[in-house]
Amino acid sequence: MRQAAAPRHAVILAGGAGERFWPASRAARPKPLLRVAGGASLLAATLARARRFAGEGRTWLVCGREHAAAMRSESGLPASRVLVEPERRNTAPAVAWAARHIAARDPGAVLAVLAADHRIDDARAFQAALAKAAAAAVSRGVLVTLGVRPTRPETGYGYIRIGEKVGSPHAGLHRVRRFVEKPAEARARRYVRSGAYLWNAGIFVWTARAILEEIEAHAPELAAATAPLGARSPRGTALARAYRQAPPLSIDHAVLERSRRVWCLPVSFGWSDVGTWRSLAEALGARGGRSAVVAGEVVSVDAPGNLVWGGERLVALLGVEGLAVVDAGDALLVARLDRSDELRRVVAEVRGRGHRDLV
Amino acid sequence: MRQAAAPRHAVILAGGAGERFWPASRAARPKPLLRVAGGASLLAATLARARRFAGEGRTWLVCGREHAAAMRSESGLPASRVLVEPERRNTAPAVAWAARHIAARDPGAVLAVLAADHRIDDARAFQAALAKAAAAAVSRGVLVTLGVRPTRPETGYGYIRIGEKVGSPHAGLHRVRRFVEKPAEARARRYVRSGAYLWNAGIFVWTARAILEEIEAHAPELAAATAPLGARSPRGTALARAYRQAPPLSIDHAVLERSRRVWCLPVSFGWSDVGTWRSLAEALGARGGRSAVVAGEVVSVDAPGNLVWGGERLVALLGVEGLAVVDAGDALLVARLDRSDELRRVVAEVRGRGHRDLV
Repeated sequence: MRQAAAPRHAVILAGGAGERFWPASRAARPKPLLRVAGGASLLAATLARARRFAGEGRTWLVCGREHAAAMRSESGLPASRVLVEPERRNTAPAVAWAARHIAARDPGAVLAVLAADHRIDDARAFQAALAKAAAAAVSRGVLVTLGVRPTRPETGYGYIRIGEKVGSPHAGLHRVRRFVEKPAEARARRYVRSGAYLWNAGIFVWTARAILEEIEAHAPELAAATAPLGARSPRGTALARAYRQAPPLSIDHAVLERSRRVWCLPVSFGWSDVGTWRSLAEALGARGGRSAVVAGEVVSVDAPGNLVWGGERLVALLGVEGLAVVDAGDALLVARLDRSDELRRVVAEVRGRGHRDLV
Repeated sequence: MRQAAAPRHAVILAGGAGERFWPASRAARPKPLLRVAGGASLLAATLARARRFAGEGRTWLVCGREHAAAMRSESGLPASRVLVEPERRNTAPAVAWAARHIAARDPGAVLAVLAADHRIDDARAFQAALAKAAAAAVSRGVLVTLGVRPTRPETGYGYIRIGEKVGSPHAGLHRVRRFVEKPAEARARRYVRSGAYLWNAGIFVWTARAILEEIEAHAPELAAATAPLGARSPRGTALARAYRQAPPLSIDHAVLERSRRVWCLPVSFGWSDVGTWRSLAEALGARGGRSAVVAGEVVSVDAPGNLVWGGERLVALLGVEGLAVVDAGDALLVARLDRSDELRRVVAEVRGRGHRDLV
């Protein structure tokens, strides 16, 4: 059986910045390093999941140069397993590089591709899903994407329209009919009602061989640009050239939306991309009469449904509802949670005033 | 003419605490010391008004023991003109003591009694009102209370129902029909519509002789308790005994509501007792599309009508409206302005958690 023999690797993508968690996150303190998960950073929680799937020696991290030192320090990974991107070019170059790099060392590898900054509630269900996806990826050569059963008409996520069911021994998986962009609210409601649309969580399982074949087939520029990034660690200039030549696309756009070898595994292990203060508040259960306190001491009088990220000083709330209150020591944010997707306007204004140290 | 000869004195009452401005004010940093008036403290602004009426050498301050050092320091008054109360007993003992003390030195004195922590917009109109009130007080021996023409149906103030007009040369003054307690909203609306109800601002003008006569007539216990506080500065034990024996009443309750010698001068010089974050916000013009910033740097995106009192760190607001955001360094408050009269609940909770340094 190929399945049993395929060595499992995990690739953690930690390329994003995190303006959407300002002021807790910023250029020098990116989102994966935020300690939102009971004191552990999002990265540390992701690493624990990755190691459980792949083992310590086969867990990899891809991140940007500006965060490499912090990422290495937080992850404890040896430098040899941290792929440092010379510039940010979205996820497709990162996935391609990691696949080539790992394939050169372990040609039969099956990879789980994970974002460094997601939150997952049910660790056991998550591992079961990865294992099921890996079995299909290894035995059928498919690209498996995890589709999260929606719990609300979220307009901040892309959706996956699933198609026909796959039969035994991969029952539970579906073929993918198409990927859809973030919908408007009315459409999102229809999606949720239909049951045929799942959130595109950006969690993938495939063999190195399969993803490289599909990159070759559907993203030839990316394939050509990253071809030198194979057998040995590329020197700085070769890496920089490869990145400069690679089109800055997401792996979804570059490959998944075009490939006919994509399957989807519906999951419901409690997932959030923790994309905004609002989604963090939801992930932490701030709703109804409850507020969520990530850190700090809070005195709350008639103030339900807030997200508080305190610092050294006491935070007191009176009569307020649905707010993010974030004290980052040198900057303080008070924002309506339902406006938190506009946070970039705030960051732009802070930057525009010349506060480079604060963004 | 007695009027021209009557020496003017000003008595500033600075006895209050200031839980209602937590966390900016607290036991060790009472409200009169808050710098809300363009960098100057409320006390400094009051002193400037007092000196303009009475001159430097006849301006007096009454305050509590726990704040005496800070008050002396902020006011620059010599110790001989700061009357330090041994305990808080509301305003009647303070007024009685000051009147006796000044009368012993300057028997013909006319006194303006001012609160240390009010805000007044039109300084010139204020002085004109005091002069007019003083003329009536001196020539007619009346107790004059300033009544602020209401600009909204405020439920946080007491009202004065004015009666018949006084004739020349004191035209503009009215006799007082009665004092009324803080009304409910519907009643407050009727008061404002009627034009016959004014806000009781707690600003009084009277001769020392007249107020002492009326204390004798209507508050004999207060008169008896404070009788020893006359000619010379009382020793600590005599002062403590006088205060222990004095009933802890407001001068309004003890005398004004009972005296038949009370006149009212309607005024509209822009007044606020700055009693809550909300009233400070209103005094500073935070309404409609405007926020009011007392201190600190604020980045505001679609966030109108807030009051921000920042500190060292940048404050960013997104989409919030009608809030007080107060960063006091060691404590942070986020409160709905229209709930700011409930702030004591917050302070009680902070105290209940043992944070004595914060309250």
